[in-house]
Amino acid sequence: MVLFRRLLGDVLRDQRMQRGMTLREVSAEARVSLGYISEIERGQKEASSELLASLCSALDVLLSDVLRDVSDAVALEEAAAGLTPISVRRGAGAVVASAA
Amino acid sequence: MVLFRRLLGDVLRDQRMQRGMTLREVSAEARVSLGYISEIERGQKEASSELLASLCSALDVLLSDVLRDVSDAVALEEAAAGLTPISVRRGAGAVVASAA
Repeated sequence: MVLFRRLLGDVLRDQRMQRGMTLREVSAEARVSLGYISEIERGQKEASSELLASLCSALDVLLSDVLRDVSDAVALEEAAAGLTPISVRRGAGAVVASAA
Repeated sequence: MVLFRRLLGDVLRDQRMQRGMTLREVSAEARVSLGYISEIERGQKEASSELLASLCSALDVLLSDVLRDVSDAVALEEAAAGLTPISVRRGAGAVVASAA
């Protein structure tokens, strides 16, 4: 099963790393405990919508961009699991698996 | 504040409507109480990642597609709130707001 919170955690950690921020800095900026953010990044805890908004604000990233990155990561896992052809919504390059 | 659960609820309800399914049918298929699904669709409750996966499966829709739709809806609200130019990641047609 492809779990949203695990890929969300990956994306949030990537965003934090790209900005060179520590967990402590994000924690202070978002006013969320460091341990909780760490658990979210590791996909061990669900982030409430309010907390997700705070984290995005602390990371200075748009929620829509985070969700698009998560969608892309989920799509890769779905494709790897054979649930969907890769790039099915990306247009010309789509490879459609056939059962024939 | 743009809340993920509200726009997720909108997208899940739209997907259900497009398939002509009732809350009762999704509830039976996903093995989740009808009242809980209704609260999720109205953005009143957060869906756990497992529940979200079950709902997508019951609706026969890919999680990645749901998340992409939510990302698009979030982007529209962010643009309306002046947080970002519309279509900033959509390439050629992007209009970039200027503070000058």
